[in-house]
Amino acid sequence: MSLQDWSCGVPKSNSETITLSHGSGGRLSAKLIEEVFFKHYLSPELSARNDSAVLDWSSDGRVAMSTDAFVIQPLEFPGGDIGSLSVYGTVNDLAVQGAKPIALSIAWILEEGFPLSQLSQLACSIGKAAAECSVRIVAGDTKVVERGRGHGCYITTTGIGKVPKGLDLGPSQIKAGDCILLSGSIGDHGMAIMSQRTGLVFEPILKSDCSPLHTMAKDLIENIPGLRVMRDPTRGGIAATLNELASSSRLCFQIDEARVPVRAQVKSACELLGLDPWIVANEGKLIAIVAPESLQAALQILRNHPLGSQACCIGQVTQEYRSRVIARTAYGTQRIVPMPEGELLPRIC
Amino acid sequence: MSLQDWSCGVPKSNSETITLSHGSGGRLSAKLIEEVFFKHYLSPELSARNDSAVLDWSSDGRVAMSTDAFVIQPLEFPGGDIGSLSVYGTVNDLAVQGAKPIALSIAWILEEGFPLSQLSQLACSIGKAAAECSVRIVAGDTKVVERGRGHGCYITTTGIGKVPKGLDLGPSQIKAGDCILLSGSIGDHGMAIMSQRTGLVFEPILKSDCSPLHTMAKDLIENIPGLRVMRDPTRGGIAATLNELASSSRLCFQIDEARVPVRAQVKSACELLGLDPWIVANEGKLIAIVAPESLQAALQILRNHPLGSQACCIGQVTQEYRSRVIARTAYGTQRIVPMPEGELLPRIC
Repeated sequence: MSLQDWSCGVPKSNSETITLSHGSGGRLSAKLIEEVFFKHYLSPELSARNDSAVLDWSSDGRVAMSTDAFVIQPLEFPGGDIGSLSVYGTVNDLAVQGAKPIALSIAWILEEGFPLSQLSQLACSIGKAAAECSVRIVAGDTKVVERGRGHGCYITTTGIGKVPKGLDLGPSQIKAGDCILLSGSIGDHGMAIMSQRTGLVFEPILKSDCSPLHTMAKDLIENIPGLRVMRDPTRGGIAATLNELASSSRLCFQIDEARVPVRAQVKSACELLGLDPWIVANEGKLIAIVAPESLQAALQILRNHPLGSQACCIGQVTQEYRSRVIARTAYGTQRIVPMPEGELLPRIC
Repeated sequence: MSLQDWSCGVPKSNSETITLSHGSGGRLSAKLIEEVFFKHYLSPELSARNDSAVLDWSSDGRVAMSTDAFVIQPLEFPGGDIGSLSVYGTVNDLAVQGAKPIALSIAWILEEGFPLSQLSQLACSIGKAAAECSVRIVAGDTKVVERGRGHGCYITTTGIGKVPKGLDLGPSQIKAGDCILLSGSIGDHGMAIMSQRTGLVFEPILKSDCSPLHTMAKDLIENIPGLRVMRDPTRGGIAATLNELASSSRLCFQIDEARVPVRAQVKSACELLGLDPWIVANEGKLIAIVAPESLQAALQILRNHPLGSQACCIGQVTQEYRSRVIARTAYGTQRIVPMPEGELLPRIC
């Protein structure tokens, strides 16, 4: 079945809601699994109905494992929903580590009273996103909490993937002189959510960049021997990611502020709300650190990818200040980019 | 460090609580990870601080994967807490599948205002339980939701394990004539929680059976060639587990009611509250189906294990009724044991 043919077939008229019995492990739990989850995401491992999924695993290589709890509000937003986000988020964490994502588990915490039609819609979104990323959903769990003890639904996804033999990516590989690449504009996810929550309407509408990065990461791994490390700058934005990398590598990340792409409407929205786009979350952007001799080839690969047309080199790694991120402003001055403090936008993912 | 030396060192005087900023991905998130989680459970994979953990994996065998969300109330109860339960629960799901548990991920959903000292206590409990089960915690995530959108904390654990080559356990292996073994008394976990919640005090105090089953499962796998399938009867009790197995194997599970061990105080508590101990949750019991010729050897192995002194054969698999669980009562009559309906005890795990 192609992704275009994917039909959720969720009856809009269904007014049934989740009850505590759906989390009992009894008959209603079984019905929910069969009629909602298996309908939208079924794999041979799930249909075996065992306490654990058992997967064949190739003889070489290592296993990557990553987990994320998703508590985003609202559950549906321009450009995505908590379902697709929970798949892409975990797939991306595996992909930037150099792993080929293989299998996911999905654990739901549902609030009593949650509409069954919305649950079905989100399960459909999960199934579609998993198919898009060629990952199988192999394990799951569902719990129900009383009204007022949750918020519609929370989803925790955990993924495992295969890491190719010999691949060694990580902050310890970063060297002074390396180039810092960014696959596209920043702040789109965070500002889309913020505009939904505040009720501020921007024209054209702000859309989340929520997307899977596994093919982009694969293209870099297979073609760029000078690839040092990849990251997807989610919570805390590029400011948090760059600070983490600077701190782990004990090097200085010098960024040319003018080169960081920010959409005009994201910039306006940030100005209006007094936010710095560098600390706003992204859900479909890649930061890659590459050796200087790999710069052009890596940029070309990013720009050839459907999600990387705006890719650019935003700066360089130096030894100027240890464990610091420094931005060169348009006026030629420098400023320290701190690790984000506090919480501007709770529940962004 | 031996488990006896395990000290949590949680300052009781600490009145700090969780704020939304602890879930920001910024400085406070980093502080929480370093000072609370890394203090109590640190592994080489966690300390690498990557988006995914990367684990060496042996060349043979398969991967087992299992996930569970834990929403139990109260968070601490006689015999355990949500921390140890979340480790044992996932370890047990892997173990009954025949897998050797290797690695866990821990995703927290914290409610704003949750005491930091309690979080630290639970993290300590997780670290201790993981050490006891010889599993490494390799990946994690922390989200914070607003007051009134959670209930203290929820934990989702996902585990991966190695399945020995050639091992093939599952309901499809069950044959008529097989024996149904149970490792000990039923209903202890559920009634301990119920008594906490209702405020009913039983003497001696009802304690959860919350324990890891990985060594018991390993002993059976390594010594009993006639082992067909194992399960841990949690939510829905032995009634749910036996019905699932009967339904998957399309056979009849005939249970001798008098042989199912129930502690006297659990029995009294169930009678007082009008509950059937067969549908009450367990968190440290094993059901094993074995070939008739393996019965004595399997019973001996269970009884030699510290958690299995009360192990017994509770019945046999027959072809009498397809996909049914039948109990023979003390009066010689038979009754159908249905799949549990509704929700007697929400948030039991």
